[in-house]
Amino acid sequence: MLEAVVEVQVQTLAGMRADRVAVEAPLEIRLGGKAATVLMRTPGDDEELVRGFLFTEGMISQASDVVALRRPEGLSGDEHGNVIAVELSPSLNLPSFERMFYSSSSCGVCGKNSIAQLAVRAKPLTSRLTVRRDVLSALPARMRAAQVAFHETGGVHASGLFSADGSVVAVREDVGRHNALDKIVGWGLGAGRLPLADQILLVSGRVSYDLVHKAIAAGLPFLAAVGAPSSLAVDLAEQFGLTLVGFLRETSMNVYANAQRLIDA
Amino acid sequence: MLEAVVEVQVQTLAGMRADRVAVEAPLEIRLGGKAATVLMRTPGDDEELVRGFLFTEGMISQASDVVALRRPEGLSGDEHGNVIAVELSPSLNLPSFERMFYSSSSCGVCGKNSIAQLAVRAKPLTSRLTVRRDVLSALPARMRAAQVAFHETGGVHASGLFSADGSVVAVREDVGRHNALDKIVGWGLGAGRLPLADQILLVSGRVSYDLVHKAIAAGLPFLAAVGAPSSLAVDLAEQFGLTLVGFLRETSMNVYANAQRLIDA
Repeated sequence: MLEAVVEVQVQTLAGMRADRVAVEAPLEIRLGGKAATVLMRTPGDDEELVRGFLFTEGMISQASDVVALRRPEGLSGDEHGNVIAVELSPSLNLPSFERMFYSSSSCGVCGKNSIAQLAVRAKPLTSRLTVRRDVLSALPARMRAAQVAFHETGGVHASGLFSADGSVVAVREDVGRHNALDKIVGWGLGAGRLPLADQILLVSGRVSYDLVHKAIAAGLPFLAAVGAPSSLAVDLAEQFGLTLVGFLRETSMNVYANAQRLIDA
Repeated sequence: MLEAVVEVQVQTLAGMRADRVAVEAPLEIRLGGKAATVLMRTPGDDEELVRGFLFTEGMISQASDVVALRRPEGLSGDEHGNVIAVELSPSLNLPSFERMFYSSSSCGVCGKNSIAQLAVRAKPLTSRLTVRRDVLSALPARMRAAQVAFHETGGVHASGLFSADGSVVAVREDVGRHNALDKIVGWGLGAGRLPLADQILLVSGRVSYDLVHKAIAAGLPFLAAVGAPSSLAVDLAEQFGLTLVGFLRETSMNVYANAQRLIDA
């Protein structure tokens, strides 16, 4: 069984049976020996998650900003396997890192302040990527086929990266929508693929502000979702030139921003 | 149009048309004149949300701990309508309030530490509530009928409170699953109904750790979800005596913990 999945006993109309649920467990990110934050995540691809999270939240700007990721030894109980210590490049300013965490939880995380912060490090997306409607329509089924934990639990979200012709580049799963995307970005960062300027991002659920923010930070020009977008997701997509598609189905879709990247044939 | 819903232009296969999306906007909670945290929420029932959030996160323990909620005057732009200033009872210890925020973002938010914290203020749920299977099966349709923004956008979550006979007590919507639940708890707190020891809580999506944590804090003995639970949700429900039902459908359901509250007739 995957580390992302755990077996539980469940009572159904037909009686007790074994069932599988998605694992949700805390991942503590340590910085300079101190706990900096905790992500509730599905175990698996933890290092990609940490790299992606640090990048999309603006704490690092390149792969080499992370000197090392380590799992501290000697941990027991709940901490075992659920702590990653990050060593950042000495050239990075640690106080600003702490200020960033502070600001994300306690000042204008959104609206003009946050959009202004994002604008400092993310340029409007000028990618000339175009995507055919029929290619896009086929992606949800392709992502589901590539998912592993979803089939066992029905309880995880996914983010998938696809090339313009619809080939799967990477798929990651997590109980958290934002974690699944951070795992994709962390993979791209580690593989030297950022910015992901000629790829399509597909997410399994709805699209809120934070997902659009993270996609823009990674340079992704095209975000499609199976679910609905929020108002702020649409606003941010319009401002940064991101193509935003919602309610993606085999036979229908809604384009909320920058429809010019979607072509008919 | 509701304040929870906003109109956007959307391109479909049939051409451009107006569509409605759920509003997502930041709500800044100020404490002692300083921004303490920001919730990304759907406007509406903001005061219930603030009261519920403060309660389920353990910052207050009774309605009278909040002396006043005010919307500061003179705000413009993105801040207008998106800030609530909280005046807490002087008898509450402000430093511990700040420590609580700190701890939720930066130490063992979960696993043994957090369960130990919860145990300090939430007793195991000993409610003798029983719920008939046929009553429970009918609740998802009843909640959808009571939802407003969902029908217009397809993009909001809901939490619904029901009595043991299946009558609707309260339904709240939000782009955030946890916000919808906090709005319910805030309503209960304001109405002098806490703990909600003889009510059924239904949530529209999946059940992660944070939802179970909040339900236990409010004294809710019975949590049913349309979606899947996570591993930690099941663990916590078992430990605190919460009945946890997932994948609730008209003709089927899975009971993950404390099935004794579910009866056949």
